[in-house]
Amino acid sequence: MDKSALSQHKATLDQAVKACKERTYWSQYSESPKAYGEGGQEAGEQEFKALLKKEFSLLQTGSSDKGGAEKSPFGQDLGVSYPSAPVETLIENAKKAQMSWAKATPEERALLCVEFVARINKVSHLMAYATMHTTGQPWMMSFQAGGPHAQDRALEAIAYGYEAMAQVPHDVIWEKPQGKQPPISLSKRFEVVPRGVALVIGCATFPNWNSYPGLFASLVCGNPVIVKPHPMAILPLAITVLEGQKLLKEAGFDPNLLQLAVDSVDAPIAQKLATHKDVKIVDFTGGPVFGQWLEENVKQAQLFTEKAGVNSVVIDSVGDLDAMAKNLALSVSLYSGQMCTAPQDIFIPAAGIETAAGKKSFDEVVAAITKATSGLLGDDARAVEVLGAVQNPETLKRLQGEGKKDGVVLASRTVSSAKFPEAQIHTPVFVQLDAAQIDRFGQEMFGPIVYLVRVADTNEGLKLAAGLAKEKGAISAAVYSTSEKVMADAEALFFDAGVNVSFNLSGNIFVNQNAAFSDFHVTGANPAGNASITDAAFVASRFRVVASRVLRPASVEGVAPTANLASASR
Amino acid sequence: MDKSALSQHKATLDQAVKACKERTYWSQYSESPKAYGEGGQEAGEQEFKALLKKEFSLLQTGSSDKGGAEKSPFGQDLGVSYPSAPVETLIENAKKAQMSWAKATPEERALLCVEFVARINKVSHLMAYATMHTTGQPWMMSFQAGGPHAQDRALEAIAYGYEAMAQVPHDVIWEKPQGKQPPISLSKRFEVVPRGVALVIGCATFPNWNSYPGLFASLVCGNPVIVKPHPMAILPLAITVLEGQKLLKEAGFDPNLLQLAVDSVDAPIAQKLATHKDVKIVDFTGGPVFGQWLEENVKQAQLFTEKAGVNSVVIDSVGDLDAMAKNLALSVSLYSGQMCTAPQDIFIPAAGIETAAGKKSFDEVVAAITKATSGLLGDDARAVEVLGAVQNPETLKRLQGEGKKDGVVLASRTVSSAKFPEAQIHTPVFVQLDAAQIDRFGQEMFGPIVYLVRVADTNEGLKLAAGLAKEKGAISAAVYSTSEKVMADAEALFFDAGVNVSFNLSGNIFVNQNAAFSDFHVTGANPAGNASITDAAFVASRFRVVASRVLRPASVEGVAPTANLASASR
Repeated sequence: MDKSALSQHKATLDQAVKACKERTYWSQYSESPKAYGEGGQEAGEQEFKALLKKEFSLLQTGSSDKGGAEKSPFGQDLGVSYPSAPVETLIENAKKAQMSWAKATPEERALLCVEFVARINKVSHLMAYATMHTTGQPWMMSFQAGGPHAQDRALEAIAYGYEAMAQVPHDVIWEKPQGKQPPISLSKRFEVVPRGVALVIGCATFPNWNSYPGLFASLVCGNPVIVKPHPMAILPLAITVLEGQKLLKEAGFDPNLLQLAVDSVDAPIAQKLATHKDVKIVDFTGGPVFGQWLEENVKQAQLFTEKAGVNSVVIDSVGDLDAMAKNLALSVSLYSGQMCTAPQDIFIPAAGIETAAGKKSFDEVVAAITKATSGLLGDDARAVEVLGAVQNPETLKRLQGEGKKDGVVLASRTVSSAKFPEAQIHTPVFVQLDAAQIDRFGQEMFGPIVYLVRVADTNEGLKLAAGLAKEKGAISAAVYSTSEKVMADAEALFFDAGVNVSFNLSGNIFVNQNAAFSDFHVTGANPAGNASITDAAFVASRFRVVASRVLRPASVEGVAPTANLASASR
Repeated sequence: MDKSALSQHKATLDQAVKACKERTYWSQYSESPKAYGEGGQEAGEQEFKALLKKEFSLLQTGSSDKGGAEKSPFGQDLGVSYPSAPVETLIENAKKAQMSWAKATPEERALLCVEFVARINKVSHLMAYATMHTTGQPWMMSFQAGGPHAQDRALEAIAYGYEAMAQVPHDVIWEKPQGKQPPISLSKRFEVVPRGVALVIGCATFPNWNSYPGLFASLVCGNPVIVKPHPMAILPLAITVLEGQKLLKEAGFDPNLLQLAVDSVDAPIAQKLATHKDVKIVDFTGGPVFGQWLEENVKQAQLFTEKAGVNSVVIDSVGDLDAMAKNLALSVSLYSGQMCTAPQDIFIPAAGIETAAGKKSFDEVVAAITKATSGLLGDDARAVEVLGAVQNPETLKRLQGEGKKDGVVLASRTVSSAKFPEAQIHTPVFVQLDAAQIDRFGQEMFGPIVYLVRVADTNEGLKLAAGLAKEKGAISAAVYSTSEKVMADAEALFFDAGVNVSFNLSGNIFVNQNAAFSDFHVTGANPAGNASITDAAFVASRFRVVASRVLRPASVEGVAPTANLASASR
């Protein structure tokens, strides 16, 4: 392994640390597929196809079983089988691998992690197809969210971990004055030590984007990581783990520092792993039910959760109604509402709203939103590129059930795709409700389901939205208003509910989007999750500091310590 | 409240932040009683006496019950009764008080917290007597550990919390390039919000020193704090809470931000408080049994624990045997071994050790240590100033039980005090064991009990010591060796076990001592506790960050945002 190649990443690391503190726009990895070379997309598709119907090889030891039964939401069975091992084998491998990794300095680990991300970046086109055919995301989202955006989130976590460790000095001299006597003098050494085996539990919709922060935060802080993907979205994380294992081996570390744990829907192993006595860190992204189970049962490890909640939009007043409607139409349609940041409830005052073109009634606002959505998704070929496919049959059932209930103002439409005839592709259903029908809009209805809720006034809308965020959790909130007073009130209410809130978005920026190095994803301040991607709290407890103190001969001149530990190691 | 008075503390705060990063010697509050003015000690004693046999008044509301039944380990009943309130009243008070405190800026809160510490510093002589007559600490330790040393720990926690919050920018402009189009431009505001109601559970031996870090870390991060002292050591924390309440009121905040919760040994309320749904942060110092109960049952809050463990000394070789023996004699005798950092097990090679004066046998090493202890504690009046009094009747029973078992090489001696005839004052018992008798030395035996354990060689001693630290926890470790190789091996073993280790201490510095701004107290890396006083992880999760984003008109020149939230508040 060429160390000078790694040292080139120091500038990237420093820039990333700076970006985390400034939180203005910065990105290390281009989100444009074209930046990855002519023919990249086609090559990526071929690389993806070459993996299908085969055994996927990893460098981890003791994994002789086979697992994996992924089916693309766009139709085909992937037919990839992955190495699999008993929980105890994975844990023992990890503990053994930790030893040499813990001895590397924080900077050595951080630079190797940056190289790891750089290598994943090079296979972004392959990752796009692996992401698309496990999650059902449309291709462009698969490329960005499975590739460069996830890679930026990885680099951000590395930067936070590195910076946190860098705050601890290594060798210091401590001299306590003793009046006229010589000072008491101690040589002190502070050493960062790993917390222990880390587990990352991935989700089916954003396997990379949501798993990379925990994976890289744990790894940079010295911990071995076991990655347990959702059984329906293994491939993107398997490719990631393999790239990491190859690099670790090349750099002289044990590839078991990063292991893949494969299970099935019928025989899950996440509970056993997450509550294992030797697992000390658990990162989870997924549904609220299992998330809450973890929160109640994981006692031996530091647990970081991102679950879900009820995301709201409150419309008070707006300049350009159509611009708002177009923006919301895309927000609710993107990946069929299967983003944890997708809006579900849109609160609209019964008396209508002020716009630059005069007062618009409640019905006109509803019509503007549904019309914009119909327009956006009117063409099947284009609709597929926005909606992607429904990832989970449960989501489809939920959508169909909602279509049969009262209040449907825009029915869901099945979109057909010539390329993917077996894919489940459906436009969102829009349901109009009154504020009293909170039993319907007051719970998470994951997928392409949108509630347009008639409220007495803006204030009622804000209070319902913030109240749901407090009670059920929320990851995003959006408000449209031309009033500074309303905006300030809304900000105060959503801040109190612990939700990030976006105002007056239109054009090419959406409430669903959270940018690395600027937006904290999930706040940890409401039931949607107990952690934030990425803040200092996300990394600070992934390592510990131990210290040694050596008495130095009493002397104001500061002669050499009794024994020079500083030279004895490191 | 004079704001300019507060702003004077900014330099102290900045210096404290710098000290936390450098970790060389620094202290804000003098540990010398003389620095607090002529006649300070006498005045402190009078102030203490004036509080006895009375109701202690606080500024908290709804606390009409009365609690408290403290008895000084030096003899007298304090007879102080404290306001007390039902758990629900305390929680509701706290939630209400949080609102205005959360709106203060992190710097405003930090400066007010520094003023709070400055005011406690002014009553250090009163605090010495309050500490002495609740904990049984000798007077000088009471002064230092109950006063300036605890105050330094408080300032350290304030500095960490302030610095962590300061890493989050407040208002930024985020501009994402769009090729030839104008960039997407968002005004973003990041706001630090409190995590919620904080609970601090104090211990009977170091009520201030161990409670201040959690108290001030939570408070500076915007959280209301309920302080639940050990029922036998209420007064030091009651004085602290009252000083805080007076200051908060003076500064225009709700004094209920800081409340005292008083219970009794027979009717404890700590479990109910710690598992209350609205309690979001719990700091605990105390015994392993309740600590573990909390670790298993507190699911709704971030929990920080400092429990206890088995602290060891390993003797390999030494220059001056007598200097080592004197140092160890004081370490095990100070406050009758009732410090969580006091050594319990001293491992000595069966074949003896090398010293500058030649080889000394196992028996000679044992004799040197016991002789040094007898010498140190030979005079009753002086012994009281080292030993203090036994705080808990259980500790006395344990000591007496041990004295009846095999292996006693130096019996415990009852020390009589003319000033405190009713006090339980006892020198430590020294028990000689073999390595195989791990059932005796392999568990925490809190109090003045010392095991001198014969091991095959240094290596066996190191492995036993590190193994106990891993399994039972440890807060300190000490090694005496003139060999760099042994020191490096020992450092590696203790670092792996997650214990801070001190080498070759002699003279006026002891393994028991942990200095604020330099030594991390407890590592969080072994069963002795899950947190460290004070590192970044101790503060980072005590607050959350929420954000708002406002779309700005698309423009490369960056004109004013659609509505200027930045001016609408703050």
